[in-house]
Amino acid sequence: MPAHPSRPWKEVVADKLTADRAKIPEHWRLSADVIAAAKTRKQIAGDFVEGLLDSETRHVTSADAPDLVAAIANGSLTAVQVVTAYCKRAAFAHQLSNLLLEIGFDTALARANELDDYFKTNNKLIGPLHGLPVTLKDQFHVKSLETSMGFVGWIGTFEGKKGTGKEKKLESQVIRELWSLGAIPIGKAPETNNNILGYTWNPYNQRLSSGGSSGGEGVMQALRGSAFGLGTDIGGSVSMPASFQGLFSIKPSSGRISFRDVANTGPGQQVMPTTVGIMSRSVGTLKLVFKSLLTTEPWLRDPNTLPIPWRVEKEYDAEKEHDYKPAFGFMANDGVVTPHPPISRALGIVKRALEESGYQLIDWVPPSNNESAQIHGPIARGDGCPDAYEAIQLSGEPIVPEIDNVFPGGKLRQPMPLPEYEQVVLHMKDFRNRYNDYWMSSAQNTHTGRPVEAVISPVTPYAGILPGKFQYSPYTSSLNVLDLPSVVIPVTFADKAVDKLDPNYAPLTEKDRVNMALYDAEAHDGAPAAVQLFGRRWDDERVLSMAQLIADALEKYNRKHGGQP
Amino acid sequence: MPAHPSRPWKEVVADKLTADRAKIPEHWRLSADVIAAAKTRKQIAGDFVEGLLDSETRHVTSADAPDLVAAIANGSLTAVQVVTAYCKRAAFAHQLSNLLLEIGFDTALARANELDDYFKTNNKLIGPLHGLPVTLKDQFHVKSLETSMGFVGWIGTFEGKKGTGKEKKLESQVIRELWSLGAIPIGKAPETNNNILGYTWNPYNQRLSSGGSSGGEGVMQALRGSAFGLGTDIGGSVSMPASFQGLFSIKPSSGRISFRDVANTGPGQQVMPTTVGIMSRSVGTLKLVFKSLLTTEPWLRDPNTLPIPWRVEKEYDAEKEHDYKPAFGFMANDGVVTPHPPISRALGIVKRALEESGYQLIDWVPPSNNESAQIHGPIARGDGCPDAYEAIQLSGEPIVPEIDNVFPGGKLRQPMPLPEYEQVVLHMKDFRNRYNDYWMSSAQNTHTGRPVEAVISPVTPYAGILPGKFQYSPYTSSLNVLDLPSVVIPVTFADKAVDKLDPNYAPLTEKDRVNMALYDAEAHDGAPAAVQLFGRRWDDERVLSMAQLIADALEKYNRKHGGQP
Repeated sequence: MPAHPSRPWKEVVADKLTADRAKIPEHWRLSADVIAAAKTRKQIAGDFVEGLLDSETRHVTSADAPDLVAAIANGSLTAVQVVTAYCKRAAFAHQLSNLLLEIGFDTALARANELDDYFKTNNKLIGPLHGLPVTLKDQFHVKSLETSMGFVGWIGTFEGKKGTGKEKKLESQVIRELWSLGAIPIGKAPETNNNILGYTWNPYNQRLSSGGSSGGEGVMQALRGSAFGLGTDIGGSVSMPASFQGLFSIKPSSGRISFRDVANTGPGQQVMPTTVGIMSRSVGTLKLVFKSLLTTEPWLRDPNTLPIPWRVEKEYDAEKEHDYKPAFGFMANDGVVTPHPPISRALGIVKRALEESGYQLIDWVPPSNNESAQIHGPIARGDGCPDAYEAIQLSGEPIVPEIDNVFPGGKLRQPMPLPEYEQVVLHMKDFRNRYNDYWMSSAQNTHTGRPVEAVISPVTPYAGILPGKFQYSPYTSSLNVLDLPSVVIPVTFADKAVDKLDPNYAPLTEKDRVNMALYDAEAHDGAPAAVQLFGRRWDDERVLSMAQLIADALEKYNRKHGGQP
Repeated sequence: MPAHPSRPWKEVVADKLTADRAKIPEHWRLSADVIAAAKTRKQIAGDFVEGLLDSETRHVTSADAPDLVAAIANGSLTAVQVVTAYCKRAAFAHQLSNLLLEIGFDTALARANELDDYFKTNNKLIGPLHGLPVTLKDQFHVKSLETSMGFVGWIGTFEGKKGTGKEKKLESQVIRELWSLGAIPIGKAPETNNNILGYTWNPYNQRLSSGGSSGGEGVMQALRGSAFGLGTDIGGSVSMPASFQGLFSIKPSSGRISFRDVANTGPGQQVMPTTVGIMSRSVGTLKLVFKSLLTTEPWLRDPNTLPIPWRVEKEYDAEKEHDYKPAFGFMANDGVVTPHPPISRALGIVKRALEESGYQLIDWVPPSNNESAQIHGPIARGDGCPDAYEAIQLSGEPIVPEIDNVFPGGKLRQPMPLPEYEQVVLHMKDFRNRYNDYWMSSAQNTHTGRPVEAVISPVTPYAGILPGKFQYSPYTSSLNVLDLPSVVIPVTFADKAVDKLDPNYAPLTEKDRVNMALYDAEAHDGAPAAVQLFGRRWDDERVLSMAQLIADALEKYNRKHGGQP
C-alpha cells in the first residue's frame, strides 16, 4: 500500500501540535527559559519540577492516590482542587518532556465540578476513584479526545479510517469503567518514540530512554502529572518504562482488565493478548485501581474478560497468617544475560531485606528464557505486522528506529505460514505447562512446604538505557509468553560510585558479554533501578499483596540501614 | 509426506482387533446369532440390549450415577459389582456396535477392588465418583491403554511417534483427576467413522449415523456401557451425538476442564479451543462430574485452566429465589435453516412445558449464524489440517468420507495466510462482543428486568441423520465461536405419524430448502429429538442449573399431558 497522503505529514503534525498547545491555559505555560534550562539538566524529576510548582499543587500531587480519595471523602479537598493541581502539573510535565498527544483539561474540570456537586448533594463519593486524574497511553479511546497511537496517519480519523462516526465518540470499556468509578481522564501520552512528539527521555537522566512502549505514560507518572496511568503490555511495555522511571506497575494476567475497544495493531491478540497495565507510585494505588475496576464486573460487558472478582482471600494477611512466612523464588540472572551492576545491587537489597524479615528465598532456575524468546518473537511479529505498516504508510511518515527491524529496508516482511505459527502456539502451551510444573515442584525446596508465592527477578538488565542500545527483553517478554502477572518494584538508583563492574564477572553467554559491554557507570548514573515480582497465572491479587509485603520489607530495611526508600 | 508404512494398514488393524477381542472374557461374548439379529433390527438401545442382560447387570446399569455412588456409600453395592456390571454391558455394546478401540476391563476391576478395600478400611468413599465406570473418546490418554484417535498410523505409537517412552504411560490430566476422584476408565470409544472399527450407527435407528465426532462415546452412553463418558468438542462434536442418542451432555466453556495432555490434531487450540465435554443420562450426572473435577483445582496443574471453582451461588435455587422466575431466549430457527419437524416439535414441547410452569420465553434473534459460520471454518480448518493429514499418511489408510472435503482430491490444501487468519480472529472477537451486547439488551424484553438466563435452540436441524447427509452445523459451531456453555436436553423421539412437513413451510433460504428436502419421516422415525440450552460464557454452573429446571418442567409436563420423558 503506497502512500498517497493528501497533505505532507509534517504539516499534519504541526497543526496537531498547535491545537494541543492551545489547550494549555496561558497561566500554565512555562517560559522558554525554563524549558531551555530543563533541557540542559540531567534530572528533571523531583526537585526541579517541584520547584516550578505552587505549594498547593505540590501538596496535592505529592499525595498517594488512596490518600487523595480519603481527603475528598472527608471534605478536606475537592475534586476540582485535585484535578486542577494535576492538570497543571501535567501541563508542566508536557512542556518539559513532550508527554501529551491529547489534552483534556476542560472536560476533566467539568467532570470534577460534577463530582463535587454529587458529593455535596449525596454526601458520599461517586465511586472509589472519585476525583482521581488519570492519564493514558494513547491507545485507549476517550470521548472528545483523538487516538493516534503516534501514527500521523491516524490523526483526524478513527484508527486510520475516516467517516466511521466513532472518532472521539467510542470509548474503551475500561475508560467507561474508570469514569463510572470517579476517575477523570486528563490526557493521553505517547509511545516512547513517534513522529508527532518526538523522543521521550528519562526524567531521572535525560540522556537515557524512558523505555518502551508505554514510555510517555511512564514519564508522566515519574513527573507526577496524574494520580495513575494506564499502559499496555505485550512484551514488557508497561514493566520496562515503570522500571526505568522508578514506578510501581502491574502487568496483569490476561483477561482481568477489559481490553474491549482499545486500539491495537499487531497480532497475537488472542494467543498472547496485550494486557492493560497500571502505573503509579505505590502498590496501594495499583490495588485500589485494579480492585475498583473489578467491582464493575467488566465481564458482563466484555465476553473476553474473565468472571473473576477481586478475591480478598488471595491477599496475604500477615496478622491472620502470622505462622506462615511466604517463600519467594529469586532469579539473580536467567542464565543467559547478567543484569548490569545497579540491577544486581537492587536485587541484593531486596534479598537482604526479605531475609532480614524472615522470608525464605530459593534460587529460581525455570525453563530457559532462550526458549521463551523463540516463542515470543513469532507470536508477536510472525505476521509481519501489516497493521502497523499500513498505519505508517497512511501518512508517509518515516519508520522510527525502534521498529525498523520489524520492517527491514522499510518493507513488509513475509508472514510465517499458519501451520508454523500454530506449532509455536503449541510450543507456548508446552512451555507454560513445564514452567508451571517447575513452579509447583518448588514446594520441595521451601520451609513452608508450599510452592513459592512469587518470584523476584530483574525487569531488564538495565537501570535506564541509552536510545538504541536495548538488547535483551526476555525478563519481561517471558512473562507475556507465560501470561503471568508481574509487579515492578522500584528499589534504588544507579550510583556510579558503587555500581562498578564486578572484577570477577565472567560472561554467561556471548549475548551476556555484548550486553555487559554496554554498561557505562557514568551514563547510567542516577537512573532508577527496579526489580519485578511475578506470580502464578491469574493470581494478580496475590502478587499485589506480596509486592506490598516486599515494599514494607524494603522500607524497614532502609530505615535500619539507611538508603533510598 | 508420502506414506511408507512398514506393513499394510489392514494387517495392523486386524492385529489390533484380535488383541481387543482377546480382552473380552469368554462368558461375555455374544453369539454370532445375537449379533446377526441385532444387525437386522432398527433399534437396539433399550429393550433389545436390556434383554441380553442378567437382572443384576440390568439393575446396576439402569441406575443414575449419583444413585450408584450413594448405593456404594451406604454399602448396598460394591465398586466391583458396579464395574463388573458396566464392563459386561460395555462388552455387549461393543459387540453390537463396534464401540471400543481399547478395552481396560482388567485394570478397571483391579481398581474397583482397591476402592472396595479402601471403603472397608476407612468407612468412607475415596471421592465423589467412587466406583463409577467411565468411557472416553479415544483422544484421552489413559495409562495401560493406547490412543489412536482412529488413525491406523498411531497404533503402537504415542501420537504417531515411536520410542517416546510415553506410550500407555502418559495420562491426560483430566483422567488423573477422575482417577483420584474414584472414577474408573473401562475403555475408549472411536470417532464416528474410522478405518479400525468402521462406521458407528445410531442405536435408536441403525440406518442413521450416531453423529460426529464423539459418536462412539454417544452410542456407548445410549447403550449404557458406562456411567458417563467424556468427549471433545470444537464444533458440536459432543452436542450432536448426544442429541442423536437421547443423552444429556455439556460442552463447557473453554478453560473449565483441563485439556492438558489430551491428544489433538488440528488448529485453533488457543483461539477457539477444543473443550472436554461430558455425556450421560441425567443433568445430575453431568453436574456431579463437572463439580467433582473442579474440587481437584485443575488450574494448579494446568496453567490453561481457569482458577474458577464450582460456584454454588450460580446455581438457581427455586426455594430461595421463589419470587424470581427466570426468563429464557427461544430460537425456533436461526433465520437460515429451519429444523426438521421432529426438532420443531421438541422445541414446542419445551416451550409449552416452560410456559405452563410460569417461565417467560422471548424470541432470540442474535447476530447471525451466517456470520459465525464464516468465522468457524477458517479458525478450525484454515491451516489445512496438516496434523490430521500426516496422521493419515503414516499408515496409508484411506481418508474417511466424513473429512474428505478437508483434503480435496486427497491432497493437503494451502493454509490461509497468517494475516488473514488474524483478521478472522478479530472478527470472532467482534462477533462475541456484539452477541454479548445483544444478550445484555434482552433485559429490556423480560418481565424479570434481567437478561435471559439461557437460550433454548436446536442442536442440529435433525433428529438423527443419514450418513453423508449432514448439511448444517452452525447451531452448535456458533457456540464454539462464542465459547458459550451448552447443555443438550433430550425431549422426545421422531414419530413418522406426527412429524410431517408443515404444508405451510416456506424455505427461509436456499440452504433451508436443500436441507428440508432431506427430511424423510420414515427414515428418521424413532430417532431421539433434542434441544440445547446455552448460557453466558463461563456460566457453566448456571446453565447446568437451568437445564435441571427445564428437565423438571418437562417431567411435570409429561406427567400432565402424557408423552415420553
